[in-house]
Amino acid sequence: MDFTVETATDAVVDSFRETKDQRLRQIMESLTRHLHDFVRDIEPTLEEWEAAIGFLTEVGHKCDDTRQEFVLLSDVLGVSMLVETMNGSEEGTESTVLGPFHMTESPRRELGDSIDLLGTGRPCVVSGRVLAADGTPLPDTELDVWQCNEEGFYDVQQPDVQPPGNGRGLFRTDGEGRFWFRTVVPSHYPIPTDGPVGRLLQATGRHPYRPAHIHFIANADGRRAVTTHTFVAGGPYIDSDAVFAVKSGLITEFSESHEEQDAERFGVTAPFTHARFDMVLAPEAEGTR
Amino acid sequence: MDFTVETATDAVVDSFRETKDQRLRQIMESLTRHLHDFVRDIEPTLEEWEAAIGFLTEVGHKCDDTRQEFVLLSDVLGVSMLVETMNGSEEGTESTVLGPFHMTESPRRELGDSIDLLGTGRPCVVSGRVLAADGTPLPDTELDVWQCNEEGFYDVQQPDVQPPGNGRGLFRTDGEGRFWFRTVVPSHYPIPTDGPVGRLLQATGRHPYRPAHIHFIANADGRRAVTTHTFVAGGPYIDSDAVFAVKSGLITEFSESHEEQDAERFGVTAPFTHARFDMVLAPEAEGTR
Repeated sequence: MDFTVETATDAVVDSFRETKDQRLRQIMESLTRHLHDFVRDIEPTLEEWEAAIGFLTEVGHKCDDTRQEFVLLSDVLGVSMLVETMNGSEEGTESTVLGPFHMTESPRRELGDSIDLLGTGRPCVVSGRVLAADGTPLPDTELDVWQCNEEGFYDVQQPDVQPPGNGRGLFRTDGEGRFWFRTVVPSHYPIPTDGPVGRLLQATGRHPYRPAHIHFIANADGRRAVTTHTFVAGGPYIDSDAVFAVKSGLITEFSESHEEQDAERFGVTAPFTHARFDMVLAPEAEGTR
Repeated sequence: MDFTVETATDAVVDSFRETKDQRLRQIMESLTRHLHDFVRDIEPTLEEWEAAIGFLTEVGHKCDDTRQEFVLLSDVLGVSMLVETMNGSEEGTESTVLGPFHMTESPRRELGDSIDLLGTGRPCVVSGRVLAADGTPLPDTELDVWQCNEEGFYDVQQPDVQPPGNGRGLFRTDGEGRFWFRTVVPSHYPIPTDGPVGRLLQATGRHPYRPAHIHFIANADGRRAVTTHTFVAGGPYIDSDAVFAVKSGLITEFSESHEEQDAERFGVTAPFTHARFDMVLAPEAEGTR
C-alpha cells in the first residue's frame, strides 16, 4: 500500500512491530501517532519543516557539560513540569522541576548554619518540619537545599566567585523532624536566553523570568523523596513563571518576625525575616499516581 | 490556577497569546497540545524523560556540516515523507524525500552523457519525458539527477574517490521534453547507522536499508518543481524502505532492451539495460493540496 497522508501513521507504527522492549514499542507508537497528528494539523511547508530541523539542531549544539538547552526547551513548553506532576505523590508535598542547577554533592551543613557565604542580600531564616501525612515527624530526613544569590545567580553560574557552594547545603532534620538554616532572600532571575530557547521566548512575546524560590529535595528512609521549591510570596513573576513550576501550596511568606524565642533558637536577633515551610513525604509503597 | 495534569496544556497554550506572528502562534499551540497529549499518553517516569532528553541531545551533537541526524530521525519516523506528501501536487508525479545527499551544484551534463565516472557496476540507460498533465511535452526542463554507486555510496560520502561528481548531473530536456543519460544500476544501501538514530533502529528491530533508487528534481518554467525518485523494480527492501519513501507509481523496471534504434540514439549497443521514467509537472498556479 502506498504511503499517503492517511496511511502514513499506520505504516510507521507497523515498522515498530518487532521491537522486543514492549515499553519502547509503546513509546515509539505513541510518539509516531502524536507527531504525525501534529504535522497533519499544522501542514508545514517544506521550508517550515527545514526551519524546525534547524531549530532542534541548534538546541542540540547549545548543549554541553554545563548547559542543557533541551531541558530548557522541555521547561518552557511545560513538559518538564507535566512529567514532574505526573510522577508526584497525591499525599505528599507537591513536587516541581529539578531545574538545571542541582549538584550531586551539596556541602554538608549543620542545622542553623548559613548557606549565604557572600554576606550580601536580605538575611532570613528558613525553618520547617518534615512530616508524614498524619503529622508524624520524620527525623533524620536529608534535605538538599539550593538557591540563587540576590543577583539571581547560582554558584555554578559564577565559578569565579569564592567561596564555592554559596546558596547550597545538605541538612538533616532533628529528632522532631525540624530543620532551620540561615540564608538571604533569593531573587527572581531569567533562564538563560542566549540560545535558541531564548529566541523562541522572544519571538513568542514571553519573558524568561522565574519567580524567586529555594529548591529542596527531601529524602527520608521508607518515604518517597520529593523534589520541590518554596516560592517567595508576592515576588515578581509569581503568576507567570517561565517554566510553569509555581503551585499555590508552595508559596511561602518571607515576613518579619519579632519572636525572641525563635530568634534565639535560630541564632539571630529579632526582628528577623522568617519563612516557614513544612514538607509532607508519602510512604514509599504508594503508587506513582 | 495551579498547574495540574489537566490544566497544564491550557496554561502553556495561553503563554503564547502575545505571539505577533500568527503562524508561529498556531504552530506553538498545536505543538504544545500534541506534545502534552503524547506525554499524558505514555506517562513517562522521570528517568524515561531524562533518557529522551539525552537522546535528543545526542542527535543534536551528531549533526555537523556533512551529517544531519535530525533529518534522519524525521526520515525514519515517516515525518519527512509525510511533509513531502502534504506538499506534493495531486496532478503531477508523486514527490518523495530529498534525502541528505543532494548538492546545490550538480555538474552540468549533455543529454546522453554518462554520470557513471567510475566504470563499475551494471551499465544502463535512463530515459523518459517530462510532460504536463495533458501530455504536452515540457522542453528545457532542468533535471537534477543523483544516485549512489554500485556499492551504495554517494560521491559526497567518498570524498577521496576521484573524479568528483560521480553519479550526479544537471540535464535539460530537449525540444520534445525528452531526456536520456547513461549510468549504472544503483544499489540499495543503509542510512548511516553510527549515531543515535541507528541505535534506535536497532533497538526497535528495524533494518536501516533503502531500496535502490535514482533521485530527480524536475524544474520547468511555470511549473511546480517535483522532488522524487525512481526506484529499481524488484530490488531488495522495495517493500520496507527505512524512510518510507516508496510509492508504487515511482517504481521502474530496469530491463534488457534489444531495440537497436534506441541503442543508437543513446549511444550504446544492444542489448542494454533500459529504465523509462516519465514525469508530470503540475502548473505553478495549482494550490498546495
